[in-house]
Amino acid sequence: MHKYIYTFKEGNKEMKGLLGGKGANLAEMTGLELPVPQGFTITTETCLLYLNNQSFPDNFDQEFDQRIAELEESTGKKFGDFKNPLLVSVRSGAKFSMPGMMDTVLNLGLNDLTVKALTENTQNQRFAYDSYRRFITMFGNVVLGIDHDKFEDILHHMKEEKGIEFDTELNAEDLIILVDKYKKLVLDETKITFPEQPLLQLKLAIEAVFNSWNNERAIYYRKMNGIPHSLGTAVNIQEMVFGNMGDDCGTGVAFTRNPSTGENIFYGEYLTNAQGEDVVAGIRTPKDINYLKQENPKIYNRLYEIRNILENHYRDMQDIEFTIEKGKLFILQTRNGKRTAHAAVKIAHDMIEEGLETKEEALLKINPLQLTQLLHPSLDPKAKKEVIAKGLPASPGAACGKIVFNADDAYEWNENAEKVILVRKETSPEDIHGMNAAQGILTSMGGMTSHAAVVARGMGKCCITGCKDIKINKHDKTMKIGDLILQEGDIITLNGSTGEIIIGEVAMKDPEMTIECQKIMEYADQIRSLKIRVNADTPHDSKIGREFGAEGIGLCRTEHMFFQEERIDCVREMILCKNSEGRKAALKKLLPMQIKDFREIFKEMDGLPVTIRLLDPPLHEFMPESDAKIEKLSNEMDMSFDELKEIIQNLHEVNPMLGHRGCRLGITYPEIYEMQVEAILKAANEATLQNIQALPEIEVPLVSDVREIREVKKIISKVVEKMKNEINFEYKIGTMVELPRACITADQFAKEIDFISFGTNDLTQMTYGLSRDDAGKFLFYYLDNNIMEFNPTETIDREGVGSLMKICVNLARKENKEIDIGICGEHGGDPASVEFCHEIGLNSVSCSPYRVPIARLAAAQAQIKENIKKREAVSPERNIKN
Amino acid sequence: MHKYIYTFKEGNKEMKGLLGGKGANLAEMTGLELPVPQGFTITTETCLLYLNNQSFPDNFDQEFDQRIAELEESTGKKFGDFKNPLLVSVRSGAKFSMPGMMDTVLNLGLNDLTVKALTENTQNQRFAYDSYRRFITMFGNVVLGIDHDKFEDILHHMKEEKGIEFDTELNAEDLIILVDKYKKLVLDETKITFPEQPLLQLKLAIEAVFNSWNNERAIYYRKMNGIPHSLGTAVNIQEMVFGNMGDDCGTGVAFTRNPSTGENIFYGEYLTNAQGEDVVAGIRTPKDINYLKQENPKIYNRLYEIRNILENHYRDMQDIEFTIEKGKLFILQTRNGKRTAHAAVKIAHDMIEEGLETKEEALLKINPLQLTQLLHPSLDPKAKKEVIAKGLPASPGAACGKIVFNADDAYEWNENAEKVILVRKETSPEDIHGMNAAQGILTSMGGMTSHAAVVARGMGKCCITGCKDIKINKHDKTMKIGDLILQEGDIITLNGSTGEIIIGEVAMKDPEMTIECQKIMEYADQIRSLKIRVNADTPHDSKIGREFGAEGIGLCRTEHMFFQEERIDCVREMILCKNSEGRKAALKKLLPMQIKDFREIFKEMDGLPVTIRLLDPPLHEFMPESDAKIEKLSNEMDMSFDELKEIIQNLHEVNPMLGHRGCRLGITYPEIYEMQVEAILKAANEATLQNIQALPEIEVPLVSDVREIREVKKIISKVVEKMKNEINFEYKIGTMVELPRACITADQFAKEIDFISFGTNDLTQMTYGLSRDDAGKFLFYYLDNNIMEFNPTETIDREGVGSLMKICVNLARKENKEIDIGICGEHGGDPASVEFCHEIGLNSVSCSPYRVPIARLAAAQAQIKENIKKREAVSPERNIKN
Repeated sequence: MHKYIYTFKEGNKEMKGLLGGKGANLAEMTGLELPVPQGFTITTETCLLYLNNQSFPDNFDQEFDQRIAELEESTGKKFGDFKNPLLVSVRSGAKFSMPGMMDTVLNLGLNDLTVKALTENTQNQRFAYDSYRRFITMFGNVVLGIDHDKFEDILHHMKEEKGIEFDTELNAEDLIILVDKYKKLVLDETKITFPEQPLLQLKLAIEAVFNSWNNERAIYYRKMNGIPHSLGTAVNIQEMVFGNMGDDCGTGVAFTRNPSTGENIFYGEYLTNAQGEDVVAGIRTPKDINYLKQENPKIYNRLYEIRNILENHYRDMQDIEFTIEKGKLFILQTRNGKRTAHAAVKIAHDMIEEGLETKEEALLKINPLQLTQLLHPSLDPKAKKEVIAKGLPASPGAACGKIVFNADDAYEWNENAEKVILVRKETSPEDIHGMNAAQGILTSMGGMTSHAAVVARGMGKCCITGCKDIKINKHDKTMKIGDLILQEGDIITLNGSTGEIIIGEVAMKDPEMTIECQKIMEYADQIRSLKIRVNADTPHDSKIGREFGAEGIGLCRTEHMFFQEERIDCVREMILCKNSEGRKAALKKLLPMQIKDFREIFKEMDGLPVTIRLLDPPLHEFMPESDAKIEKLSNEMDMSFDELKEIIQNLHEVNPMLGHRGCRLGITYPEIYEMQVEAILKAANEATLQNIQALPEIEVPLVSDVREIREVKKIISKVVEKMKNEINFEYKIGTMVELPRACITADQFAKEIDFISFGTNDLTQMTYGLSRDDAGKFLFYYLDNNIMEFNPTETIDREGVGSLMKICVNLARKENKEIDIGICGEHGGDPASVEFCHEIGLNSVSCSPYRVPIARLAAAQAQIKENIKKREAVSPERNIKN
Repeated sequence: MHKYIYTFKEGNKEMKGLLGGKGANLAEMTGLELPVPQGFTITTETCLLYLNNQSFPDNFDQEFDQRIAELEESTGKKFGDFKNPLLVSVRSGAKFSMPGMMDTVLNLGLNDLTVKALTENTQNQRFAYDSYRRFITMFGNVVLGIDHDKFEDILHHMKEEKGIEFDTELNAEDLIILVDKYKKLVLDETKITFPEQPLLQLKLAIEAVFNSWNNERAIYYRKMNGIPHSLGTAVNIQEMVFGNMGDDCGTGVAFTRNPSTGENIFYGEYLTNAQGEDVVAGIRTPKDINYLKQENPKIYNRLYEIRNILENHYRDMQDIEFTIEKGKLFILQTRNGKRTAHAAVKIAHDMIEEGLETKEEALLKINPLQLTQLLHPSLDPKAKKEVIAKGLPASPGAACGKIVFNADDAYEWNENAEKVILVRKETSPEDIHGMNAAQGILTSMGGMTSHAAVVARGMGKCCITGCKDIKINKHDKTMKIGDLILQEGDIITLNGSTGEIIIGEVAMKDPEMTIECQKIMEYADQIRSLKIRVNADTPHDSKIGREFGAEGIGLCRTEHMFFQEERIDCVREMILCKNSEGRKAALKKLLPMQIKDFREIFKEMDGLPVTIRLLDPPLHEFMPESDAKIEKLSNEMDMSFDELKEIIQNLHEVNPMLGHRGCRLGITYPEIYEMQVEAILKAANEATLQNIQALPEIEVPLVSDVREIREVKKIISKVVEKMKNEINFEYKIGTMVELPRACITADQFAKEIDFISFGTNDLTQMTYGLSRDDAGKFLFYYLDNNIMEFNPTETIDREGVGSLMKICVNLARKENKEIDIGICGEHGGDPASVEFCHEIGLNSVSCSPYRVPIARLAAAQAQIKENIKKREAVSPERNIKN
């Protein structure tokens, strides 16, 4: 027969899926013989069955009655007993912690009869009726669906009548009246009398907790935290213990280490004669846990002993809830404690040092994404802030400055030592100088991988994108948020980690990479098999990436180099030429500049491979857009405005993402790639002569067919032939795989090349038929309404894009066992995606400089998970034991 | 040992791959004991080996010498013999006919000695030296690479000197001098004397023919005709026979049936005392073949006998070349004759009737694409025409009219009974009324599947797209082609079958669907297993499609219905509404109109399924673009110009193809799909009440994930629930598969739906990362330079897009065996793509109305090919016999 319920004696901490986190840990602690109030857990499976049919499964009642009987037996109490009534708490507990998202009912079992027994047993009528009215409130709200405020109104009214301020000032008589009023409210609202039968109360409460799995805030929380909706919640029925029965009672929360700094110091707070709620209410100030040592050394020592037992047992920092009832300590909950990034790193580091955890165990417990906090300045969490709008947290960190509305202004103001925030509808490559000059970037359009977002992350610069509430008027240089109008020069602060836009200046905290963090990174490097590279277009980014541990450049985009002031003119001249000769002449001017670019990057990356992508974007990106700029350029180029305007219009594309770009450009205008290849090889030659080990890897973008590769290889061969006496270094040729067709036909070209790099940004866009720049109009709706479970522009879509990648890897390796396969899309810095890349056997991931440590840790975690799986496959019983 | 050469006695007609078409047929005729001048064929394999190494393979010479000796033996002639010299022709002959593309050398073996023997033997010095000078010209040009004009110049000069007009007026002495001058030219140009050694002549000529496989015009021809470059050509060495030795000689060409009408009448022309060249030169008018009956009944009867032998043997209309040498008939070539579409259909029909061919054989010989000629008006091929530019043949047929530059003008002029050609940079849905009013459409941008092309084909209207030579100035209402400027109102003619733009008016021929054609279609229907449907958005198109044999509508796009005058306002009102209620109100006005649309289509398609696609295009397509129109709309909508302009700008997308469209629109604005579903079901209900069998199939566009289907199904269910008493008919729900992700995850959604329809237009674009509207900038370059072998927007790319389709079919059928899978992209009307669809087991293809007969025939051919393969698998020996 199916088992729906586990007593705390039956479960263990590995059963989180079935019993939820809370239930599994209560069972584990029971197994450790810690003082846990007795009870049992109704499984998540039962929840799912219930939610499907809106009724308990067959045979459930039988098992349930049995467990109740056992609980009554072991506690010596009885539901509804007029002498020794059993009171229980009913709490949700899902596999993953969802604090405050689902419902809880305390003091269940109270009714007009048992409240009297409670009065008798505690000799405290006020306590008994206070518990009773709290129970009716919770039950009324959670189970019967009565608005919480309606109970509060009655309470408030009574306090007003009595002229008192705090609930605690109500005496027992007041509370008795209040209970009556509450029951009348229940009758009025539901047309039924408040259920007095404890078992009925309990069944109703269980159903309510089950249903709370699908309340709006729970759904939202799961979405935000990537928790599947299909898990369901368990329900824990536990004997009540009370911390508010007198001065020999109390309640508290403790962390086994400092969750803020990670220091190995017992940390926590408690309140005497109180329930958990009182801490939250904030009426009384809790006492430091160390004070308990003086106040009640026996309890403190026992608690400290338990702290050690739990931390040694869980081998992780624990967050413990405890209650002292009449001098007896009860542990109500333990779980892995939430912690800051600093703390996470320090705890992992220390636990390895202390021998409490292996490196594998410790590394696995750090959330790689949290490391972001360590690598960017952040807002002082204690500072006050007025959030005026919220966009997408596109690039973490914080920034504060005066608003400007175009790149030129950003540049000029910055020259005048003003800190600025660049506010744009969206940015384009023409804005780079302004983005570089700004403290942070805010756009009203675009997503997490829009131009602004990608460039900002590359720069390690705070950025918020897609803030739809902002209406920008670039002519007036104002922006509107609701009724609020901000002018150029007004100060705002961006929190790139949350997407919050705050008015005025907020205090900042500097980033720091602690010794512990470096040590953790070293451990990660020892474990991981994936190589980590950096996406870097400049010597500066290369340097940062290398300092953060990158083992090469995975993507050096050459287009940004074309935008620099002295170059853009040559580029435009090249574009405006009507024949190959003219283009060659213009490109000749660019050649020495490109050589210098590459040489400096090779220098920074001495001894490490550098993948350089040949020109990728469509040519119109290099042309001015506004009439004024076209006018200016037409004068410079000595052509008529109309002629130039027409050329620019002819360059316009309906869907530039799917247009004349990538190797299509290089094949139709071979002189461009010829110049770039020559620049790469010349730079490598010069570097080599300076005793720098240059390892260039030439990358062909946007390949859809093997013939394109062959065509570009012809161009490369031509240059190589010309330079054959200068090639005193190794070089490789490879392609970016960013089109579904390239994945599907990888067997055809694998033998032609040395490496493949997945451009998962574009690959995701093509596979989904989704433009990052336009997706905002439906993507967030999809995410909010569970039509997408995650954002595929952030985390690789395993089922679609991932399947194509797998097909590609298999086809390519079949034909070329030695081929090196990596990824250089934005996903390279996303831990879940890094894990996927490890799983499908890629050789490397490449990401923006500030994401390199994240990728290093994520790669190590992926390897650790694989190791665990392998060990489990060898000796499956370890799984159960562990 | 490898065999490089086959004598005509060794080969047969099945060996076209190895011997080329000409060689295989010469061998076949030799086997039939027809009077073929003797010779042998050097294989295509030898050609490929030669081209690879630029030298003959080892052992070739030995075999070659042996064959020459045999030829000398059997003809009783000898190379270089001063009494009875062997003269041969050297002709290329590839697997597929490439008329005039490669080189030929006649009269080879002549030199200063053998020319005298020829004089002696023929008693005709003029003939001998004329043959010699022709040989030197051909050899000098083909083998030695001397410009043909240089020989012509000498000839011309001599004629001028002598004051004569025609070559024939030159006497023997003149020709002797000419031969000397030609030889001097050869010495001057090549610094070597003209090679006198016949075997050397022959080897050099063979090499030249091999190399001519890779001359520019041959490569171009193969590209245009989809012939692989990897085949190589064979070389035929054949004893010369002469039709110009006197009045008992002659030469001619005959077709076993009339190639223009298909009538079963011996058809051809001949010239007495002439060589093939003379017919081409056009100096003398050839005589009708029937005249030969009187002139030389013996030869005629023999020829007629051979005509019957060949047609019965080949079971196809033959194109025969013959020569009469001194009263003896020789057959120089036979091949399947080229024919008009009319003739192709009539011949196939008649041969079935005559029992000469099975239906399978006859159907397989009709080129489905040729049928287009029968279904559209076409230019009178005899008419004179001045082609001023060439674009893409986007929609076949011909059209003539006055140029207009915008849709409104087209509409107005048409109202005034003017025939117009609409000339646009590109068209948009706003132009539909103008396109409808125009005789033909010409655009300077866009490809074969651009908006203009797709709509025009749907309308069966002639269209040329992507004509880059045209510069349109829509303000001045002029267009420029080179220096030519055309004004509004100037007349041009379009040939949509070739892409030619012709100045002035050209005479037309009307389309006709003959009885034979209908019969052939019936046969095709009996054979094919693929269902054929039509893409139709209107009752009119539905009717045409059904008349052409469509078995349902495979794609009814609903967006065109939204553009009609009385509706576009409601659509715009809907778009401009800020909330669901407002949108619903606007949609309510559209509902009765949509009901009427669908009801009329159901009526036309009574008893046949109708797949209706829910709204697909992004909303901005429905909004006006020009400021003037925005101004007008803002007045109508009672909003400020600025407000409206801002809304329209906000609707703008960077990559609309990858934007907020398809079911993304329906999910974020559910009221749109609700209205459409209601309209479909209401229309089906009304039709049913009128005793019309409506079989609606609701299609969800642009699906990337199963969750989207579930979401739209919720919308549909809601409407169905509301209308449950009105659903007195069967209906289906399915999705369009046009995103790579949908292919890869088809197993997830196959169970949720009844049918899948591949939208291969978009699927191709996504898979290649290629926008049809923008691809012109590189696609033609790719095709011209063999970087693409075919245009994937016209013919399904089997390796990439096709692989994804196969994956989809397999995944979908695994989960839902009953699922109906079709295709509704433009590829549905392309025979090669139809064959692919048959091969991967689709249930149906759908195409534009005028393509339905093509698809029917192509589907039958695909089935026939499968049948043949199956039979061959059962009894492989049939293959050889057949």
